Amino acid sequence: MRHPCAVPRSEPEGTRQIHRQLYKHQSRSLPGTTEQGEHMTHERTASNQAALGASLQDLLAPTLELATWFLSREDELPEPELREPQAMRARLDAGLGDSGHEAAEAMEKMRAILGQTPSSSSWRFLNQLFGGRVGMASAAEMLAVLPNSSMYTLKAAGAQVLVENEVLGRMCSKVGFGSGEGSFVPGGSSANLVALLMARDRAAPGIRDSGSAGSTLIAYTSVEAHYSIPKNAGIIGLGRKNVRLVEADTEGCMIPAALEAAIEADLAAGNKPFFVNATAGTTVRGAFDPIRAIAGVAGKHGLWLHVDGALGGSMALSAEHRHLVDGSELADSFAWNPHKMMGIPLQASVILVARRGSLSASLDETADYLFQADVDEWNPGHRSVQCGRRNDAFKLWAAWYHLGDSGWDARIGRQMALARTAAAMIAVDPELELLEQPQSINVCFVVRGRSSEDVCDLLDHDGIIKIGHGQVRGRRGIRLVCVNPDLDKTTLKKILDEIKLAGRSLAVEGKKP
Amino acid sequence: MRHPCAVPRSEPEGTRQIHRQLYKHQSRSLPGTTEQGEHMTHERTASNQAALGASLQDLLAPTLELATWFLSREDELPEPELREPQAMRARLDAGLGDSGHEAAEAMEKMRAILGQTPSSSSWRFLNQLFGGRVGMASAAEMLAVLPNSSMYTLKAAGAQVLVENEVLGRMCSKVGFGSGEGSFVPGGSSANLVALLMARDRAAPGIRDSGSAGSTLIAYTSVEAHYSIPKNAGIIGLGRKNVRLVEADTEGCMIPAALEAAIEADLAAGNKPFFVNATAGTTVRGAFDPIRAIAGVAGKHGLWLHVDGALGGSMALSAEHRHLVDGSELADSFAWNPHKMMGIPLQASVILVARRGSLSASLDETADYLFQADVDEWNPGHRSVQCGRRNDAFKLWAAWYHLGDSGWDARIGRQMALARTAAAMIAVDPELELLEQPQSINVCFVVRGRSSEDVCDLLDHDGIIKIGHGQVRGRRGIRLVCVNPDLDKTTLKKILDEIKLAGRSLAVEGKKP
Repeated sequence: MRHPCAVPRSEPEGTRQIHRQLYKHQSRSLPGTTEQGEHMTHERTASNQAALGASLQDLLAPTLELATWFLSREDELPEPELREPQAMRARLDAGLGDSGHEAAEAMEKMRAILGQTPSSSSWRFLNQLFGGRVGMASAAEMLAVLPNSSMYTLKAAGAQVLVENEVLGRMCSKVGFGSGEGSFVPGGSSANLVALLMARDRAAPGIRDSGSAGSTLIAYTSVEAHYSIPKNAGIIGLGRKNVRLVEADTEGCMIPAALEAAIEADLAAGNKPFFVNATAGTTVRGAFDPIRAIAGVAGKHGLWLHVDGALGGSMALSAEHRHLVDGSELADSFAWNPHKMMGIPLQASVILVARRGSLSASLDETADYLFQADVDEWNPGHRSVQCGRRNDAFKLWAAWYHLGDSGWDARIGRQMALARTAAAMIAVDPELELLEQPQSINVCFVVRGRSSEDVCDLLDHDGIIKIGHGQVRGRRGIRLVCVNPDLDKTTLKKILDEIKLAGRSLAVEGKKP
Repeated sequence: MRHPCAVPRSEPEGTRQIHRQLYKHQSRSLPGTTEQGEHMTHERTASNQAALGASLQDLLAPTLELATWFLSREDELPEPELREPQAMRARLDAGLGDSGHEAAEAMEKMRAILGQTPSSSSWRFLNQLFGGRVGMASAAEMLAVLPNSSMYTLKAAGAQVLVENEVLGRMCSKVGFGSGEGSFVPGGSSANLVALLMARDRAAPGIRDSGSAGSTLIAYTSVEAHYSIPKNAGIIGLGRKNVRLVEADTEGCMIPAALEAAIEADLAAGNKPFFVNATAGTTVRGAFDPIRAIAGVAGKHGLWLHVDGALGGSMALSAEHRHLVDGSELADSFAWNPHKMMGIPLQASVILVARRGSLSASLDETADYLFQADVDEWNPGHRSVQCGRRNDAFKLWAAWYHLGDSGWDARIGRQMALARTAAAMIAVDPELELLEQPQSINVCFVVRGRSSEDVCDLLDHDGIIKIGHGQVRGRRGIRLVCVNPDLDKTTLKKILDEIKLAGRSLAVEGKKP
């Protein structure tokens, strides 16, 4: 059953350790009795190995060894030549077939794959709106694999429901939803979808049962908002064209007067405005829409106000920066992704609502084979877009219990300070041009005379840095998101040096700037 | 910072071990320089502990210790008195506040919480359609926490995209979608939602952009189908009332002639039939709709055929039982939850489509700040309902690589044999009544003269067994789902003995049967 494996094994000690640990398991195997359903045993014998595989008990030690190995080298990105999928496929040779592979061999293949997986906690990983980790959250996430809870009922999930309610209650209080509630959802897009859905069902209560009919419902968001707002309008049957992209000011923040004008134009046209999304932390520029002013407009017209705080909702945890989400207590719903600024492993997203009952009004469904015990407060399945739902709360609770509110406050401060430091370094560098003073943790700039896209692609394909680009006032800039608080001035300097080097290489290579 | 903790610590050795391991970390702490953004270091010094917390490197060994402890006692359910949420809240004392807690203290609180969390791999956990684990999948899931990949692009997720494509390709081939594709989704409900959405957008291409208008779209499913079918019709704007619940036969399988009649009635009424859901493994009875016959009806009328194989899709892996999903290659889409019969940790759900392009036609959205490199085949974000998306593929790949197709085949055989064994034991027991021969792994029965609901509630509240109940031909029975292949005849006997004992206690206590 030896499988050819072309990937060089850089850690023979690790391999031997795994073999040693699993040898115990192999040698314990006995023929056993195997008549199905008759004499099965909990032992992984040779004959039931096919159906059950190695036990987790036997795999825990090698798993720890692999984890330690991964952490020791996570600042390395995948090898550049494996940036080409076909080459990677040939090298990894991870195809599935009729026969399986011994546990030790499978663990070694996992090592090879992990070795070609970028770590989002590396200082080289700056590609997204998340990066770095809170160790306690990662530890809790690893432990949550063991009970493998589904979070629909107290009966099934036990104390994890208590943990989830604790975390949701704390988040509600931070955004000013003192009597609100919430639900974990599988991402910020889903959080925004649930908000749009609740608003739809409030504005047109007949749609949930009878489908759309009558007037055209109109949603508003800024031109700088996340793509999930129109995407979700397409999904829930409102139509992407019925999302108005309201003008933003030069800072990238929605202009309340432009919102008001758009609403009035729709009213005049016989449409029915129903929903406004204010973004707290836009995807490219990290800009914050003025929630309080927008709430005034939304309130005047009776519109549902949602705050997309997927990125910047965490500002609610910072005494110094809370003003960026000022007015959030006036909203009807609030999306917040702890997997971004709070460093919680994916997925960790919540939708919070100001009024209890809003979630179940749009999401609850009778299912007497599921909800069989306990009061609804302890059966979160009534408020969930999913049925079976993994436990995303334990890791967030663990990080919060360890760090406390004060730890989050310090973390946000550190991220914001890092962005100011990066902006200052860029501003004084003659090779670089800062496109704007950062409004939060996103720092956008260009290498003078070079295409930001080319710079980012070169850094990616050479296996140096993962970083992306976006539009700022019509110019395409490199987007450095200072979300990983493990960065420091030294790593920032290394990052900027690598970016400048890539820019110079492009010139040397004669590519068009 | 010592926090009062009322939970008795049953494992002082473990506690001391954690302290010993973390002591190293604490004593290494140095004052350090801390001007934010200026001289931060990767060391967790005393002064940046608040913002960063303990490192995962330092927490790995105590995490392993906690995991080993959990596995050693996972056959115990939470203490019965903690079945009451307020009592559990008081005992666990896991509230969040301004101050944090030392790492060792947080780990001990995690132990207390895990001790009150039912393990879905215990023989006592029979509450849901999942249970037990494939150790290799759990190990891979723990390791996937480290890179913490988001699966939208090859640039961000590296080799994990290859792993995901490998698994999806294998699943497509098993259901007969040779030129199909797929996407991981956050649960079976979401898989069914995406199917309904794709069907809607094919039947009425204008809805995604312009919203609903014109004729009423009608979906069909059986009366025994999962609640997510009407729930999703409510979400995507079609209306729950526009889902027809087609009659099932005495076995719980949709009657194709009844489907045909329902379609014709809708056509006569001027409605527009567009979607049929065939269930492969119903929630309560584990029944399989006749896919091939239903495909004939759907094809005749040009309807999208979806198979909800959340529970029973895994039958595609069994040579002996594949006939239960015969005709799946005629479907347009197929939902399949590897977290059920395949023993993969939650969440693990996929939506498969017969034709490439179906997913992106309903889900792709332009976002030039996200999709910046590589061809679309390697950027799964174009086919995903989510934006950021956790890695659910690695664990499934790892289990499959270890077990092979042949291992899955053996696993399914073992689960089916277990159900037959349980049914035979119930059939000959004078205290029990088998409500029907199991069609797959769900075995439904009653304790003669007792309310199934009362029996299940008693077993739950006394901390003996987690098991649920459901309707079979108008009678409420106990539903024993033989999804955990670690069960054997001995544990089945223990389970039935406990159920009978509960039934007898109810009589003794004079509760109404």
